[in-house]
Amino acid sequence: MFKKQKNLKKLVYPKEIIASSNNKKIKAVRRIMYKYKIGAYLIPRADRFQGEFISENDNRLCWLTNFSGSAGLCIVTYKAISLFVDGRYTIQAEIEKNNPEIEVNKLENSIIHKWIKKNIIIHKKLGFNPWLHTINEIKNLKSEFKNDLKLKKVENIIDILWTDKPKEKINKIFKLSEKYCGESYSSKITRLDEIKTKNKADYVIYTLPESTSWLTNIRGYDVPNTPYVKSYAIQRKKSKLDIFVLKEKIEENFIDSFGSKIKFYDINYFPKKLKELKGRIWLDGNNCPLAVSSFLSSKKTKILNKTDPTIFEKSIKNDVEIQNVRLAHKKDGLAMLNLLYWIEKNKRRRISEIDIIQTLANLRNKSSNYFGPSFDTICGSGPNGAIIHYRANCKSNRIIKNGDLILIDSGGQYLEGTTDITRTIGFGNINQLKRKHYTLVLKGMIAISKLKWPQGLSGKDIDSIARYYLWQEDLDYEHGTGHGVGSFLSVHEGPQAISKRNEVELKPGMVVSNEPGYYLKNSHGIRIENLLLIKEPKKIIPNRISTLSFETLTYCPLDKKLILKELLNSTEIDWINKYHQNVLQKFASKFSGDQKNWLINLCSKI
Amino acid sequence: MFKKQKNLKKLVYPKEIIASSNNKKIKAVRRIMYKYKIGAYLIPRADRFQGEFISENDNRLCWLTNFSGSAGLCIVTYKAISLFVDGRYTIQAEIEKNNPEIEVNKLENSIIHKWIKKNIIIHKKLGFNPWLHTINEIKNLKSEFKNDLKLKKVENIIDILWTDKPKEKINKIFKLSEKYCGESYSSKITRLDEIKTKNKADYVIYTLPESTSWLTNIRGYDVPNTPYVKSYAIQRKKSKLDIFVLKEKIEENFIDSFGSKIKFYDINYFPKKLKELKGRIWLDGNNCPLAVSSFLSSKKTKILNKTDPTIFEKSIKNDVEIQNVRLAHKKDGLAMLNLLYWIEKNKRRRISEIDIIQTLANLRNKSSNYFGPSFDTICGSGPNGAIIHYRANCKSNRIIKNGDLILIDSGGQYLEGTTDITRTIGFGNINQLKRKHYTLVLKGMIAISKLKWPQGLSGKDIDSIARYYLWQEDLDYEHGTGHGVGSFLSVHEGPQAISKRNEVELKPGMVVSNEPGYYLKNSHGIRIENLLLIKEPKKIIPNRISTLSFETLTYCPLDKKLILKELLNSTEIDWINKYHQNVLQKFASKFSGDQKNWLINLCSKI
Repeated sequence: MFKKQKNLKKLVYPKEIIASSNNKKIKAVRRIMYKYKIGAYLIPRADRFQGEFISENDNRLCWLTNFSGSAGLCIVTYKAISLFVDGRYTIQAEIEKNNPEIEVNKLENSIIHKWIKKNIIIHKKLGFNPWLHTINEIKNLKSEFKNDLKLKKVENIIDILWTDKPKEKINKIFKLSEKYCGESYSSKITRLDEIKTKNKADYVIYTLPESTSWLTNIRGYDVPNTPYVKSYAIQRKKSKLDIFVLKEKIEENFIDSFGSKIKFYDINYFPKKLKELKGRIWLDGNNCPLAVSSFLSSKKTKILNKTDPTIFEKSIKNDVEIQNVRLAHKKDGLAMLNLLYWIEKNKRRRISEIDIIQTLANLRNKSSNYFGPSFDTICGSGPNGAIIHYRANCKSNRIIKNGDLILIDSGGQYLEGTTDITRTIGFGNINQLKRKHYTLVLKGMIAISKLKWPQGLSGKDIDSIARYYLWQEDLDYEHGTGHGVGSFLSVHEGPQAISKRNEVELKPGMVVSNEPGYYLKNSHGIRIENLLLIKEPKKIIPNRISTLSFETLTYCPLDKKLILKELLNSTEIDWINKYHQNVLQKFASKFSGDQKNWLINLCSKI
Repeated sequence: MFKKQKNLKKLVYPKEIIASSNNKKIKAVRRIMYKYKIGAYLIPRADRFQGEFISENDNRLCWLTNFSGSAGLCIVTYKAISLFVDGRYTIQAEIEKNNPEIEVNKLENSIIHKWIKKNIIIHKKLGFNPWLHTINEIKNLKSEFKNDLKLKKVENIIDILWTDKPKEKINKIFKLSEKYCGESYSSKITRLDEIKTKNKADYVIYTLPESTSWLTNIRGYDVPNTPYVKSYAIQRKKSKLDIFVLKEKIEENFIDSFGSKIKFYDINYFPKKLKELKGRIWLDGNNCPLAVSSFLSSKKTKILNKTDPTIFEKSIKNDVEIQNVRLAHKKDGLAMLNLLYWIEKNKRRRISEIDIIQTLANLRNKSSNYFGPSFDTICGSGPNGAIIHYRANCKSNRIIKNGDLILIDSGGQYLEGTTDITRTIGFGNINQLKRKHYTLVLKGMIAISKLKWPQGLSGKDIDSIARYYLWQEDLDYEHGTGHGVGSFLSVHEGPQAISKRNEVELKPGMVVSNEPGYYLKNSHGIRIENLLLIKEPKKIIPNRISTLSFETLTYCPLDKKLILKELLNSTEIDWINKYHQNVLQKFASKFSGDQKNWLINLCSKI
């Protein structure tokens, strides 16, 4: 899709560019910037699909800076270079950056604005590649810059320079059986066609791979942790859909197995097909690359910039998905239980965070229909647990010590569904303060689990309920209480969430995580997470209101020795005992002998 | 301010207008409508000041329809007449209306739109008096009607017809001493001047009487329940303020007692002074009568339509107001305690709701600096308690019976501040269900009372906490959890509130009510209300967050026999015992003998 760069060496560059850095990559970027007459260039972490996980060959940000976080932006000028990251990655960016010249700044448009103004010396234009930035992202930058700076679309400078880039992995696309997804692609396309018509749109352009993968029930191995297929799609009139994927990923007979509703094209045809569109075109500016809009004829098309309609549709799980996700959680709970038993058996040996991660990976691997983790496992012991997005590596890996809390946050991708679970367990003797913190977090987690609420509320309306007990002690946690979860798709899936800001109505069929926490810097971290399914309301009893409630999907024991019973009220104690009774009931038959006794003890009443 | 109508009788009217109604008033309204060539006419409940309470001579809606509620709109066409009221007044409007021709409909712009389209027969214009409707109200109607209907400003038709209208009561304005309000008018005007300058405005027009009364520390007796002065004001350059009030309300030496910052004008000069303004003018379209904007020169002025700045400023109480309001609540609590004792002493006699209302009024009257109720007392026993905005009258008045819950919601205006308290008490033996409902409401009320929360939250973020325990039983209440309260001003004062929608940040110095409830139709109503003051956050302890919390202002015992102790947890029991200990401490010295023993018993531990 991109033209190749020619005759780079023939240009003459001012001395200040040649001398500006000792870093070859940065120097090379600046040379091409000079050729394009831009004074600054943006290198985002995102790929052309704007997903959370990207393939190795798309990690341009890491290639240039060595920063490996899941969100960030690098800006190069002739004078300076900066990584812009959000609060959770400030320390990591400082540690990982491969060059002392790289500043680390906060990822905020106003800060970016100031930084560029200070550091741009010639060519007051800011270059960016329009495939890597969304329509709304560029719109927001423009409104931040006003008349100070201009933006200029340029080719992908990193792709020009990255000569030893790994090739795109070619793994074949496969169909997810209706046994797992519960609705045919044909039915989904027809449903979406009705929504398109209601919104008076002639076409819908899907640029998120989750959207196309969900809509057509296809899956693949394109990026780590999420089984979506890197693809775009155009929904046409009369329930027809064009899909664009790299043609090498399609096996010979694969296309034949679809009916006439779907047409497959090589992804390089996407711009050509966009150019042909006429009429009112629905796209989602929050996700759609700016490049897409430049292929749409401004005369013949009218753009409806509105949330991708599959985002809401796929958040409501159907009965088959719900039955399946319960099975996925049962498999996942078993792996977690085996991990807890392994830790128990090895508590007198030296075990490390990475040992735990590997053991859990091995245990999950034994499950049928298991595809891999739904994200990189977090296992933080002692002070490492207090780093919210901690990932153990050779340097940071700790041997677990007596008195440590171990925070384990992980999840799996099964054909039956996507899981996400966090347990915090105590290793040896745990002091009173840690137990108090654990119990406060648990109280919030239980309050959400057993919440009933009148229809019409959003996550914003219930977020405080999870934090109430921590607030009473002047404590809090700096992350949301819960996120939506996909069905054998992204582990972080919108539109709903339980957070201070999310205003999407919580509806029956949605799956959401419930994961309050508490983190004391340099000491310990606590998070307890179950996934919850929003249940259909029961029939209304006279003089009662209709309420929604949650069904807990995750079953794995809580660490009872961390609970201060005196801080719990009787309904909380009842909830814990009933939960453990359910765990025992689900898993007792899987174990025998010592391990069964261990489980019975783990699930005994408090 | 309004021209007089002449030669009404000389016009000739079509027969259908003459014959259209048997009601003289409606007929007369239609005659004038015909003269103005309008096919419909709006009669709102609001006066020219948009306050909650209006004086008798402003109740045009009641004059025409006999409906006495605090919000509503009547529309007359040649064919039909309708009262539009919100949900709480539907039944009351049906009962009170003086004419079977009057339909009762829901007060919603889309419903009004449909109704007019159906019932307008000639002259497709909708007449309204621009002094009685705000700028934003008319803007919203216009955007609802689009091209269907036109609006036309006309004179006040009811004022033309209402020949025996009572005269405006002339009570003299007085100054509220700094001993009570804590800040001179001069300091307030200077502060507001800075806000005006920051917003690049040349003038601010205040049309809410609360705003001018607060800003200048004047008070009066113009409307029931709220001691504000019906007035407008214009804030000029250099901290000068023009006030417009009916000149008869000003005593001779009153003006001399103000410095040069304030100039008094008769209210009839207001339009003239508006016409003289040039520049950028700040007004609040949510409150400002449309008439005001028509006096502003469109060439020489630019309008900044933004919330009246005094609304936020007066919500933050200063130290003197805070000290005073504690005193006001002490006086009020004493009156309430005496009422509870009176009920106790009379429990074997036949007492009615109106007896309770009158006894409470007499008791409050004994307090020093007492001005009157802050709203009409609600006293609903048995099924009457379930009507949220119930007002006892000769017809509805009930004799309290054994087994009744009595809901008493009332408040007082003291020079020291404005109070608002609700207690629900049991008369005789109360069944288990009522006690359960009472305890669930109490749990929510306690959860808010002892809440601590991080800075930056609004009422919307904490509203769910008050409802949590009711929701768990599929119960809820259809009103907000709390409203702001003024300082010897309106008992309902914005901008903050604890409700599903309010997004105004809760800040130290604000006073807010905490009044969850539960209402079972035809059986009983429960509401428990204390006023709360938001306290300054304490110094931050390392590893803790800074939290806000409430100080309870209202002290009056809860009815312990209604509490099911087994539904409470230990922190709730502690809260109740500590609260009662505080009540006893505050009031023990005021009583002796039997009544003291009664109080000690009332406040003993549960």
